Amino acid sequence: MTNSVPSSDIKPEQEFDSDAVRNANPLRFAEEIRISAPFKLENGGILPEIRIVYETYGKLNTAKNNVILVCHALSGDSHAAAHSPDDDPGWWDILIGPGKPLDTNKYFVICSNCLGGCRGTTGPDSINPETGHRYGMDFPEITIGDIVEVQRLLLDNLGIDKLLCVIGGSLGGANALEWTIRYPARVVSAIPLASGAHLTSQALAFDIVARNAIHSDPNFHEGKYHEKGTVPADGLAIARMLGHITYLSRDGMMKKFGSARNHGRDIKTKFETKFSVGSYLAHQGDKFVERFDANSYLVLSTALDNFNLGETPEELQEALRNTTCRWLILSFSTDWLFPPFLSREITDALLAVGKRVNYCNIQSECGHDAFLLSNDFAYYGEMIRSFIDNTAYEQAAGTPPPFVRPDRLDYDLILDLFPKNASVLDLGCGRGGLLARLRQQNNDNIIGIEVKEKYVLSCIQRGIDVVQADLNEGLNMFADGQFDFVVLSKTLQTVLDVEFVLDEMLRVGKRCIVSFPNLGYKDYRKRLCEEGLAPNPDAGDSVHEWYKTQNVRFLTLTDFEEFCRMKNIQIYNRIALDTKKHQPVNENPNENADMIITVISERVKET
Amino acid sequence: MTNSVPSSDIKPEQEFDSDAVRNANPLRFAEEIRISAPFKLENGGILPEIRIVYETYGKLNTAKNNVILVCHALSGDSHAAAHSPDDDPGWWDILIGPGKPLDTNKYFVICSNCLGGCRGTTGPDSINPETGHRYGMDFPEITIGDIVEVQRLLLDNLGIDKLLCVIGGSLGGANALEWTIRYPARVVSAIPLASGAHLTSQALAFDIVARNAIHSDPNFHEGKYHEKGTVPADGLAIARMLGHITYLSRDGMMKKFGSARNHGRDIKTKFETKFSVGSYLAHQGDKFVERFDANSYLVLSTALDNFNLGETPEELQEALRNTTCRWLILSFSTDWLFPPFLSREITDALLAVGKRVNYCNIQSECGHDAFLLSNDFAYYGEMIRSFIDNTAYEQAAGTPPPFVRPDRLDYDLILDLFPKNASVLDLGCGRGGLLARLRQQNNDNIIGIEVKEKYVLSCIQRGIDVVQADLNEGLNMFADGQFDFVVLSKTLQTVLDVEFVLDEMLRVGKRCIVSFPNLGYKDYRKRLCEEGLAPNPDAGDSVHEWYKTQNVRFLTLTDFEEFCRMKNIQIYNRIALDTKKHQPVNENPNENADMIITVISERVKET
Repeated sequence: MTNSVPSSDIKPEQEFDSDAVRNANPLRFAEEIRISAPFKLENGGILPEIRIVYETYGKLNTAKNNVILVCHALSGDSHAAAHSPDDDPGWWDILIGPGKPLDTNKYFVICSNCLGGCRGTTGPDSINPETGHRYGMDFPEITIGDIVEVQRLLLDNLGIDKLLCVIGGSLGGANALEWTIRYPARVVSAIPLASGAHLTSQALAFDIVARNAIHSDPNFHEGKYHEKGTVPADGLAIARMLGHITYLSRDGMMKKFGSARNHGRDIKTKFETKFSVGSYLAHQGDKFVERFDANSYLVLSTALDNFNLGETPEELQEALRNTTCRWLILSFSTDWLFPPFLSREITDALLAVGKRVNYCNIQSECGHDAFLLSNDFAYYGEMIRSFIDNTAYEQAAGTPPPFVRPDRLDYDLILDLFPKNASVLDLGCGRGGLLARLRQQNNDNIIGIEVKEKYVLSCIQRGIDVVQADLNEGLNMFADGQFDFVVLSKTLQTVLDVEFVLDEMLRVGKRCIVSFPNLGYKDYRKRLCEEGLAPNPDAGDSVHEWYKTQNVRFLTLTDFEEFCRMKNIQIYNRIALDTKKHQPVNENPNENADMIITVISERVKET
Repeated sequence: MTNSVPSSDIKPEQEFDSDAVRNANPLRFAEEIRISAPFKLENGGILPEIRIVYETYGKLNTAKNNVILVCHALSGDSHAAAHSPDDDPGWWDILIGPGKPLDTNKYFVICSNCLGGCRGTTGPDSINPETGHRYGMDFPEITIGDIVEVQRLLLDNLGIDKLLCVIGGSLGGANALEWTIRYPARVVSAIPLASGAHLTSQALAFDIVARNAIHSDPNFHEGKYHEKGTVPADGLAIARMLGHITYLSRDGMMKKFGSARNHGRDIKTKFETKFSVGSYLAHQGDKFVERFDANSYLVLSTALDNFNLGETPEELQEALRNTTCRWLILSFSTDWLFPPFLSREITDALLAVGKRVNYCNIQSECGHDAFLLSNDFAYYGEMIRSFIDNTAYEQAAGTPPPFVRPDRLDYDLILDLFPKNASVLDLGCGRGGLLARLRQQNNDNIIGIEVKEKYVLSCIQRGIDVVQADLNEGLNMFADGQFDFVVLSKTLQTVLDVEFVLDEMLRVGKRCIVSFPNLGYKDYRKRLCEEGLAPNPDAGDSVHEWYKTQNVRFLTLTDFEEFCRMKNIQIYNRIALDTKKHQPVNENPNENADMIITVISERVKET
């Protein structure tokens, strides 16, 4: 092996950082239940008994309303977190523990090894009590639904009815989704991360090639490798290598392996190690064979491949229509195994059927692995924490969490325009100041759209439902006339395609409220005509310079009124403000007002 | 096999469209030369003889200056195109033939099977004359450089000294790159498509897993499978399946396989076929085994993996510094095997060392396969055609191709500002109107940057060197003071980050010419102050409405002068124009001129 670095020179923790988490193995604190009744599977198979291995963290409260169910990914297990300082690390230690987002001082966290797995719960590796042999390839085909049913059995046995939250990433996200559909009344909130309602064709293709590699391994023996005393190590290792490629982002791989490209580690393996990325893959493949069962891999990856809540928006809406939980859906920008659009699909379907949903696409370099890593935790960890805490608060108090209300004249004026409990969509909602005011009136028929990640976090912290999206891409997810009011507050002038954005808001709102700075204001006129300088309208961002203002569209009240005439838009109400004097303007508003608030709708609706 | 559609119901051409091209096999028109002298390889190995199989199209002219060398990808061969209407299709039929971009009425096109291949040219499948057996795994390690040396042998034998163009995609692009470096004096122009100066870590990882699959196949027998009478069919098929995933884009796969997700074709194969994408991969894998040799796959993929012209900008610049050809570099937006940034890396390195380079990232849904398909041919085919035709014209005439000159006062005024043969960078060059005027003066020290694909095509058609890039991302590829002049003509007002773009142009240009519409013009003042409407400065795009103009920044001459004072920018020259009257303005330009042209530089340079 030329160009190799001796393995003693590199600590495994340094090069193979996600490995420590993925290969964690101890089950010292695991508990177990056995259910000896036959268990009927969704696709017709029957298992004569079910064994469930699980771990718990924190204490169940007397109201039994502090339960969080954690669902693991394909190769995970019940050991989600360490139980004590001297315990071995769990795969989601960053998230679970005292003071952490799933705060075990407050919540009772349960994680069970899933059906079909190979870490205690019944799976192909288990002994079939009817034959005395391992199931192997005779293990019946299972679905994500079957995995949920086994978890339900566990909860029933523990005397737990409601889940404050069901949370999981990847396959665990599919697992969480299935819970919300099968048992809507038992799920208060759900957090699927790095997940989807189905795989992409590309991800499906990788799974198929992985299974072909296992099936082709001559040591596989049609799944009866235990009886033959062999292990399909080559096939399983190759499957795992493929998996690891899909867990990392392209740029992340480049950073990890680019600089030492040709310097593979001199590890003991039969696989190619001459490139650094090659020795990494060989290591991951070999380690996986030591801890995972090939038949389990086949069973679980097939269950995930068959998971499909719908390919069209209509199918997805239908699948999710009866869910009743509050949602936090998270994707990661460089995840190409479960690309962000899959999470948006779910979000959009939920919005279309009027559910309370939050969504954010976390900016990350870490690819699919991001949900297991601390790199982007400042955002997604805090979102999970706030979302669960606020959901628990609402559940207990029956009211939204308290909110400190800063002074905003324009918000107060807009608030007066809404009838009680009107459904409201706020486009470009920022930190949710307007929606928080509505929420204090106990209106939960409201939602914000915001593009900036940090503002999305602020909204979630305030308990405001918010979806991260770019207005310029339209409002496809909403039906015609879905909202009583759509608000575009001080945002029109920052939008490039004004016609498209206004068309979209007029489509989904029965009434729309649009506010914007008025270029016709006397100070701006004076600036151009007397001083020869470009006007610098203020939109609350306190950056006025022509070369860096966030404003990209400049209009007067007269421009807007002409635009409405031309586009057949009805103006119902118009409030003109002099914000410097903090007062409404009645006379000659195009010259005397620096800010305009209008209420508009499509004229055709009124005829 | 449940849910399967009988294969008789679907014609292979329908579902497996790119397959017909990839699996084309006939060599009826192939010619061959044998060179019996020992051939020394770059890494020390020696081949006792070299056999080269090649095909030619069109006629060599007497000046022998119409030769185009076509380089194939990993699994290609010499049969790049059909030789007659009744001939079998070639893998690049869309590009090569009478009247096509590589027009065989004008050019003499050569394509040879590359060293290490398995379609006639010496490779691991060939008989080693010294042993009488096939080389197999004893075939020495080869490099992309060795592949070029064998092609050079062929050209020498054909009496051909110069290549008008060397062109190739994927591994063929690496092959073309290597030609420009090894034999700069023999290459007039080069077109690497869907290629790179090295693989990404991700692409490298896929190759490694593919090789691991072949090596792990028990029928591989350390490469001596011929002697054992076996074929490592499973391993080679799995390698090919992986390859095919990387050839398609994610969205392309979704379109191709999404709707019939669960309906695999009922084909005869040992691989999984229950999903439609699975039966596609099984088919591709099986077909590949019939026509390709596993050792060849190992040898060629290893050669490509070892190809690395440099990872840093400096290394790449060093590698390309001595090239002398004119370049057209093409990437495809959804190619994730050779992502566009790899082509930009090469482009940027060439720009940094002052080469004549064109680049475009073709918008495509077809992934890496795009360069073999007709879907995006309207752009990339025309770019190739124009580039080669114009290069041939320049080579023959010694002057640029003729250019019809439309009337543009501002261009004429700007032209007067350049000394003869000044090096000029035109930012946002559009269809190249200004640069074409300079080019007519036989100045070839000029280049344009343009973001729109259709304008890039126009520039290439005019013989203007142009690089597709977004000004907002900066000018990293250029050194400080690299150009005598940098031009930003009527573009400043469309740029969001004005400070950054101006900083960048002042950094790379000794002098900069900036023109922009003046908001202080009397008509605009009148419009705001007398009519109460937003000013509507004209920047030549003839869209003036406030809600859809491409202008996003609004400034007066005074604003610009103040900006320059604040940023310590020296204004050397200022031309104020009334474009409606078609005349310069001397008096009170901030009120009387609607268009300003300035010549500026960083002040610090002058002290």
